[in-house]
Amino acid sequence: MGNLQSNMQHCKFEVPEIIFGRGLLNQIGACARRLGGHKVLLVSDQGLFSAGWVDKALKHIVEAGLKVVLYDNVTSNPKDVEVESGALEYVRHGADVIVGLGGGSAMDAAKGIAILVSNGGRIRDYVGPDKIIRPLPPLVLCPTTCGTGSDVSQFAIINDTEQRCKLTIMSRCVAPDISLTDPDTLETLPDEFVCTTATDALSHALEAFFSVASTSLTDVHAIKALRLVSQSMVEAVKERRPQDLENLARASLHAGMAFSNSLLGIVHALAHPIGGLYDANHGSINAILLPEVVKYDIPVVTEKLPELAWGLGRRTDGNVDVASDIIQEILVEMLEAAGAPRSLRSIGVKREDLPELAKRALKDVCIVTSPRQADAQDLLAILERAY
Amino acid sequence: MGNLQSNMQHCKFEVPEIIFGRGLLNQIGACARRLGGHKVLLVSDQGLFSAGWVDKALKHIVEAGLKVVLYDNVTSNPKDVEVESGALEYVRHGADVIVGLGGGSAMDAAKGIAILVSNGGRIRDYVGPDKIIRPLPPLVLCPTTCGTGSDVSQFAIINDTEQRCKLTIMSRCVAPDISLTDPDTLETLPDEFVCTTATDALSHALEAFFSVASTSLTDVHAIKALRLVSQSMVEAVKERRPQDLENLARASLHAGMAFSNSLLGIVHALAHPIGGLYDANHGSINAILLPEVVKYDIPVVTEKLPELAWGLGRRTDGNVDVASDIIQEILVEMLEAAGAPRSLRSIGVKREDLPELAKRALKDVCIVTSPRQADAQDLLAILERAY
Repeated sequence: MGNLQSNMQHCKFEVPEIIFGRGLLNQIGACARRLGGHKVLLVSDQGLFSAGWVDKALKHIVEAGLKVVLYDNVTSNPKDVEVESGALEYVRHGADVIVGLGGGSAMDAAKGIAILVSNGGRIRDYVGPDKIIRPLPPLVLCPTTCGTGSDVSQFAIINDTEQRCKLTIMSRCVAPDISLTDPDTLETLPDEFVCTTATDALSHALEAFFSVASTSLTDVHAIKALRLVSQSMVEAVKERRPQDLENLARASLHAGMAFSNSLLGIVHALAHPIGGLYDANHGSINAILLPEVVKYDIPVVTEKLPELAWGLGRRTDGNVDVASDIIQEILVEMLEAAGAPRSLRSIGVKREDLPELAKRALKDVCIVTSPRQADAQDLLAILERAY
Repeated sequence: MGNLQSNMQHCKFEVPEIIFGRGLLNQIGACARRLGGHKVLLVSDQGLFSAGWVDKALKHIVEAGLKVVLYDNVTSNPKDVEVESGALEYVRHGADVIVGLGGGSAMDAAKGIAILVSNGGRIRDYVGPDKIIRPLPPLVLCPTTCGTGSDVSQFAIINDTEQRCKLTIMSRCVAPDISLTDPDTLETLPDEFVCTTATDALSHALEAFFSVASTSLTDVHAIKALRLVSQSMVEAVKERRPQDLENLARASLHAGMAFSNSLLGIVHALAHPIGGLYDANHGSINAILLPEVVKYDIPVVTEKLPELAWGLGRRTDGNVDVASDIIQEILVEMLEAAGAPRSLRSIGVKREDLPELAKRALKDVCIVTSPRQADAQDLLAILERAY
C-alpha cells in the first residue's frame, strides 16, 4: 500500500461544468449558445435517431436560435473513418460548436471530431497522454446510457480499423465544456444496454476506487456510484422504473468524475484490446472481467475493503476478510441477476488470441494505475479464468 | 421535504481545476504561467508575509520565469478600499494574472481585484447573483487556512466600509481557474485560526448538506468534509500534527466544493451582517450560531440525519431521533473541545443590534437555500438563543 498512500498525498481533480436532471435535454441549445456557438455539429447514432431523441435535440437547438448540421453515422466502438468523415462535415458546413448525443460511442466520436477539426492529421496521431496541441472547439456532451462517463472524462477511445485496435487518447482537452445529462433519455435504451452500460459504470467506480491515483476527491464519487448501481442496476433492467434509471445515470456521472481523475486498471486495460479485436460490447467485456480482476486486486487493497462493502450497502464492522467475501459475492450476484454475460467465450473471443490480448493490455495506459502489478503471465491467467 | 426532493432532480455542479498536496506551493508559478500569465499580482496579507510564505511564493513565481508585483495589504474581512487599491496596483504595473495566497480574506480580495480590473466601477456594483459582464483575468487561489472554501467557490465577500455591511458577490466568474492547496502552509497558522477556520468548514459542510439545492454531487463532498473535521479538528488545535492539519485543509476543499454548488443557509445569512457590522471573526460567528441553526433546521431534514450521523462517525441504524440527538451532542462537544467561542456577547455583539441583524439576514442570498423558512422573528429568536 506504500505506493497508494504516497499518491494520495497529491491530488489533481478536474471536471467540466455538470448539468443533470429530467427534462433538461431542452437546455442542449442554450448550452451550445452559451459557449459562443452559432452552428452546431450534432453527433449521434441511428439508435438515438430511431428513438426520437435526435429530432428533439434538433428542435431545442433551433429554438435556441442556432443552426445545426446532423452527423448520425456513428456506430458502436466508433471508428477512425467515422471520426474523419464527421470532421469533414464540420468543416464543410462551417460549424463552430460540437454537441455529442448518445452513448460512449457518439460522445467519443464527437471528441475525435473536435480533435481533428482543430489539430488536423489522423486520429491515431493523438494516441497516449497529452498529444493535443491546439484548443478544441466548444463541446457539449449529452450521455444517453448508464455507463460511459465520456461526458466528464479526459479520455476518448476510437477504433483503428486498419490495425483492429482501440486508440486511447488521454488529455484534459477532450473533457467537454459542459456535461448535460437528461435521464429521461434512458427510457428508450434497450434492456441489454441498460445492463451492459451499468456494468461499465460499476467497473469505472471499482477500478477508480482501487486505482493507485485515487484520492479522497475521487473516492467519494466512486463510492456513491457503487451505492447507486447496487441499489438500482438489477431493478432497472427488470422493471425499468424511471427512478432506477435515473439512479444509474447518476451513478455513471459519479463514476465518470472518479475515473477521469484517478484513471482505471486491469479490467479496462484488457477490455480495450478485446474491443479493438472483436468489435464486442465494451460493457459486456467489463462485466466478464470484473470479478476476476477484483479477486486479483483484493490482496493489495485490503484497507479500502470495508468502505467499499459499505458503499455496496453492507456492514462489515471493519473486518477485512468479511468485506472481501461480501464484495465478491455481491458482485457476482448483481451481474448474474442483471443478466450480464459471464464468459469471454460467450461473446466470441477466440482462445488462441488470449496471449496476444494479454500482451497488448500491457501497453494500455490503464495498466499504469492498477493497484497490483501484472505481467503478461498474470494477465493471461486472468483471461483464462474469465474464458 | 417536498421542496428538497424536487430540487434534487436538477443538479448543477461546477468546480475549478484542483491541485492539492504537501509541498505543492512550488507549483504556484507554473500554474500562473500555464494560464498564459507573464506578470503576476500576488495578493496576500501581513500574517502570511511574517510567516515566510509570501517570500516562498515570490521565489517560486520568479523561478517559473514570471515577473511579480506584491500586494499584501489585505486585512481580515477584506475592505472595498483594499480591493480598489489592489486593482490600481494591477493596472499600474501591467499585471496579467492574479494569484491570491492566504485565507478567505486574501482570496476574496484577489477576486474583487479581478472583477474591478476587467469590469471597472466600484465593488458594490457587483453585489448579488451574476452581475459581472466581462471575463476576469486568469486567477489562481492558494488557501492557507482550514476553512474558507473561497479557492473553489463562486462567492466573494467584501466589506463595504461606508455602509458597514458585507457585500456578497455570487457568480461563476469568481471561481478561480486553479485552486492550489499546499497543506504545509497550515503549520504556521495560529491555534485560534485553526479552530475558527475549521468551524467555518464545518458550517459550510453542514449548511451545504441541509440546503434545498443540495444534490448527490454536493452531498458526497459535504459528508466527506464532516468526516474529516470530526476526525481532526480537536486534535489539530491541541496537537497540531501535520496529518490532522492536512485533513482540515482537505475538509475545507470538500466543503467548498459542496457549498459553492448547493449554497448555504441561516448560519451564513446571519454571519454576513454580523461580520459587516462588527468586523468580527467569521469562523467564530459561525461556531456560535451553528448549534442553534442546526436545532432549528433538524425538523425539516430528518431524512438526511442518519447519513449525517454516519459522516460524523456514529452509527444510528437509521433511527432519526437517535441521529438528531447524536448530531447535536457531537457538534457542541467538538466546538467546546476545540475552544470555539460560544456566545455572541463574548465576541462583542450588542444586544440592541439583534433586530437589525435579523432584518439584514433576510436580504442575504444565503437565506434562499435554507431548508426551513424563517422570518425576522425566527431569526431574532436564533440570535437571542446564541447571545
